[in-house]
Amino acid sequence: MSFGKLAIIGLGLIGSSIGHAAKRGKVAGEIVGFDASEDVRARSAKLGFTDRVASTLEDAVKNADLVILATPVGAYKSLAESIAAHLKPGAILSDVGSVKGAVARDISPSVPKGVHFIPAHPIAGTEFSGPEAGFASLFDGRWTILTPPPGADEKAVADVRQFWEGLGAQVDVMDIAHHDLVLAMTSHVPHLIAYNIVGTAHDLEQVTEGEVIKYSASGFRDFTRIAASDPTMWRDVFLNNREAVLEVLGRFNEDLSRLQRWVRDGNGDALFDLFTQTRAIRRGIITAGQDTASPNFGRDKRSDGQEK
Amino acid sequence: MSFGKLAIIGLGLIGSSIGHAAKRGKVAGEIVGFDASEDVRARSAKLGFTDRVASTLEDAVKNADLVILATPVGAYKSLAESIAAHLKPGAILSDVGSVKGAVARDISPSVPKGVHFIPAHPIAGTEFSGPEAGFASLFDGRWTILTPPPGADEKAVADVRQFWEGLGAQVDVMDIAHHDLVLAMTSHVPHLIAYNIVGTAHDLEQVTEGEVIKYSASGFRDFTRIAASDPTMWRDVFLNNREAVLEVLGRFNEDLSRLQRWVRDGNGDALFDLFTQTRAIRRGIITAGQDTASPNFGRDKRSDGQEK
Repeated sequence: MSFGKLAIIGLGLIGSSIGHAAKRGKVAGEIVGFDASEDVRARSAKLGFTDRVASTLEDAVKNADLVILATPVGAYKSLAESIAAHLKPGAILSDVGSVKGAVARDISPSVPKGVHFIPAHPIAGTEFSGPEAGFASLFDGRWTILTPPPGADEKAVADVRQFWEGLGAQVDVMDIAHHDLVLAMTSHVPHLIAYNIVGTAHDLEQVTEGEVIKYSASGFRDFTRIAASDPTMWRDVFLNNREAVLEVLGRFNEDLSRLQRWVRDGNGDALFDLFTQTRAIRRGIITAGQDTASPNFGRDKRSDGQEK
Repeated sequence: MSFGKLAIIGLGLIGSSIGHAAKRGKVAGEIVGFDASEDVRARSAKLGFTDRVASTLEDAVKNADLVILATPVGAYKSLAESIAAHLKPGAILSDVGSVKGAVARDISPSVPKGVHFIPAHPIAGTEFSGPEAGFASLFDGRWTILTPPPGADEKAVADVRQFWEGLGAQVDVMDIAHHDLVLAMTSHVPHLIAYNIVGTAHDLEQVTEGEVIKYSASGFRDFTRIAASDPTMWRDVFLNNREAVLEVLGRFNEDLSRLQRWVRDGNGDALFDLFTQTRAIRRGIITAGQDTASPNFGRDKRSDGQEK
């Protein structure tokens, strides 16, 4: 199964990776890209992950069998309104947004009758942004979650599933509210925590930024990778998944208060038990193929090949 | 400059890495190791990072020019008491503990006259433990901080500095209290936060552990690496750097409350500004050579060599 024309709207890390992976997997007859930025369009045209870059939104989506929105989610509402009249009957409209409740809220009202709206969320990324950041293997072995609305066309859901499998991903279908809670836990709150601790380090008067940088290999540097993610994308995530983020953050705060108390009281047994329990999840992630087993993510491999 | 006999007490990740790096750098005439665990001693003897593994503490430190304690810091006090009588005059006693105030408190009273006590802390590690986890390049380009007591012998400080440089590290000298605060910020609180969020994910009823594992590539998995670190070592860190950890954690909590409020209020501008500011520290860390510039720490390199 492959789509005739694939339109990718938004040519950043995810949009460009979809292009690369779609070419590799031969899942579309023609791949057309569009980005609101003329500069991004020009750079993308040279990178070869589309067959062509359209100069207008209308040209990009016209006659497309599959249209994927890959901009920050804050742009979805006006995008959907702009393209609605140009979508062909029977087309599938999809996206890659990290929140799905707000996406359904913002896009659904504009979806024309006869067009299938099948939201999707590939659980993959890096801390880099822009069309140059994309690569074909980004989705390999990672999960893409579909959140089709109740009563969605089964063939359209199956088509989107096959599309993502063609890009190298594994596919799950999930309820919207559950998706937003799961991702608040596995992605949104971790990012919030990472942004926060890097901010704390930046603001702490007694420790200079130079010291933070020099001694970052002791743990801190891991957080800075996540906290280097695209600011616009993440602003939009937090503006659009408020309830789930606040719920998970509330739990995080309760747990941290307890942990703080254990430190204050010198409760070594409780600390030891928690620190032992948390190892198991790491093992599960490695067994599931969702991270490398190499020490330090393999980042410390030396040119002499000596790794451990 | 090289030491005649080097004794490494505690043959885990750091102790075994010191052995490997000392052999590589030829910084000691004889490298003798000891570990309280007979099993660890037997495994270490086969790994070749020492010239020999002693069967008693006394035999290990006897006639040593440099003795390095590399056990969890909770064991330092009794260790120092046990070896004191066997240290030769003029020997240097050092360590690798992640907290330095408590180390001075626990070791100093036992240091015999004529023995130089020069505490050290290599800012390097992985999430793996045990003698098999060590490797020669662990300290390459990383920093080691020395916290010599006031009036410490200058030649002894210079010798320890050269020792660590011989292992590939860069060396700084720092005041004890400042060390403990800097490390609370760059290492201890980040670990506490990582342990905490992995604990929250484990306990959250609405999200299964299987879901956390499957979708961990969206951010969560980074935290699980740190939260897989050695429980005994980290219990001892938090029991022994309580004040600095609670101080930095207090700041983290204040900042998180503010961030939580921004999410609740939908303050997109404030979120965007913070998320932009935090990118700069990441760039500083990469420029300083303290982390890789590869996306996702380079962990997503594929066997086909396609990386981006």
